[in-house]
Amino acid sequence: MLLEKVVVPGSSSQLLGLRISRCLNCGVIPIEFKTFPDGEKYIRIKEEPKNRHAIVVQSTIPPNPDQGIVELCFIIETLKELGVMKVSAVIPYFAYARQDKRFLPGEAVSGKIVCNIIQNAGADEILTVDIHNKRLFENLRIPVRDLSAVPLLGEYLNKYKLTKPVIISPDEGATNRARSLAEFLGAEYVVLSKFRDKHTGEIETKSREIDVINRDVVVVDDIISTGGTMVKAIEIAKNQGAAKIYAVCTHAILVGDSRFRILNAGVTEIIATDTVPSDVSLVSVAPIIAEALKE
Amino acid sequence: MLLEKVVVPGSSSQLLGLRISRCLNCGVIPIEFKTFPDGEKYIRIKEEPKNRHAIVVQSTIPPNPDQGIVELCFIIETLKELGVMKVSAVIPYFAYARQDKRFLPGEAVSGKIVCNIIQNAGADEILTVDIHNKRLFENLRIPVRDLSAVPLLGEYLNKYKLTKPVIISPDEGATNRARSLAEFLGAEYVVLSKFRDKHTGEIETKSREIDVINRDVVVVDDIISTGGTMVKAIEIAKNQGAAKIYAVCTHAILVGDSRFRILNAGVTEIIATDTVPSDVSLVSVAPIIAEALKE
Repeated sequence: MLLEKVVVPGSSSQLLGLRISRCLNCGVIPIEFKTFPDGEKYIRIKEEPKNRHAIVVQSTIPPNPDQGIVELCFIIETLKELGVMKVSAVIPYFAYARQDKRFLPGEAVSGKIVCNIIQNAGADEILTVDIHNKRLFENLRIPVRDLSAVPLLGEYLNKYKLTKPVIISPDEGATNRARSLAEFLGAEYVVLSKFRDKHTGEIETKSREIDVINRDVVVVDDIISTGGTMVKAIEIAKNQGAAKIYAVCTHAILVGDSRFRILNAGVTEIIATDTVPSDVSLVSVAPIIAEALKE
Repeated sequence: MLLEKVVVPGSSSQLLGLRISRCLNCGVIPIEFKTFPDGEKYIRIKEEPKNRHAIVVQSTIPPNPDQGIVELCFIIETLKELGVMKVSAVIPYFAYARQDKRFLPGEAVSGKIVCNIIQNAGADEILTVDIHNKRLFENLRIPVRDLSAVPLLGEYLNKYKLTKPVIISPDEGATNRARSLAEFLGAEYVVLSKFRDKHTGEIETKSREIDVINRDVVVVDDIISTGGTMVKAIEIAKNQGAAKIYAVCTHAILVGDSRFRILNAGVTEIIATDTVPSDVSLVSVAPIIAEALKE
């Protein structure tokens, strides 16, 4: 039996939730959100969701990812109690994804613990976009799908009619992403090397020779957080004679003054998706999420 | 086999954790706490906890109870992964305890969902103090102990040599607490009636005749949050000729200007425990928690 789908957008993904429902041509159940004076959150599912397949959309975003996580549990568990048959937890930006293993003895592997929390709340599957490392989802009982926003970002970049573009991965971690984007655009790609000083925590990016003179450059990463890695790569491209430079990512966390520093380093535009809603959310991931949910 | 006990204080209950370890005459394992620029939390258990009985102490306090809840999961699950044999989750102030049933259709029963989150993180038992309503803990698999801070508050009040004291419960909900405190102090008690206007949400406290002329009054409640209920009761006592008035509670949330309004209404002193650490935490609940853990 095919269940009737309905989208239930959490407080962090209201607009994206609506966009997904439009792509799916299905209904939306709104939630009432309140915060009590003591900081406790209140949610109320405003329509009867019984017997349906609920698609809960909730990014766990800054500055308070923990609130997004707890709210997600409130929504999922309440939907299940109210008789929903299946819950797909769509977590476009998945907080704590970078803490996916124990780097030092005694550390919490927070990313995996968050996975467990969401699984235990009653999610039947998890969908996310461009997860930092798929290792995060090992050992879960429920299926997880990690969708790639690269084709959507590529389509968007195609509108710019880039001049002999070069895709730059600012470190080894983003290699696959840079390669996919380069393939999509029929462009070359270059991977820079990043070194982290074990004592000071300072990051140095190796300034290798790259042929970017009078060519447009796209620096691509999964997350732009403090912007440090991105700025280093932009400076290298700038110094070596690049024409226009675009800073592209899926998840624009953009902490503090990072937006300013990136643009000030010589970037024409920061391009990101709406997994983390902001003024640089130029590309919606709704189509790929809707497509995955049609299956 | 009796396991070696060790206290692991969370970020919200550092001092209370230490006090409990001193009452138990056992060790403490410190945690390293960090917050990343994007708001994600980092914890690291700084000593090997293997094979021990870990007593994790963490109130889930304002202004951000969700952070306390997620951190508690990080601590419990990490301790279990590191080979701890038993985890007692001591949650002196338990957030969301007032949302212990569905008042309106579609509401999240947040208190119960938080219980599930903590149980699923791997806690083997929960200890709390003066929970708003024990109904919260129905249907959990793990044992829960709700300890009463009333004797500790009574002992503290005894130092004041109160004059013919009257204990006032500001509404029906605090009746048992007022009765216990009255019994402890050998005093009388009075229960006021509170009405909540269903439309405006405004609370009215019935101003009945109570014999308080030239007598010391203790208004007692489990939680003082916005202070509204407390102030109404204080005003009634004041208007009817009370001598000194004390505002006593277990959990002093004291949102916004409530501390000022309570004192300004004519209170001599606000007396609370250290379940929620603040400048009115005059009574430590460490002895009752330690006693319960000795069993």
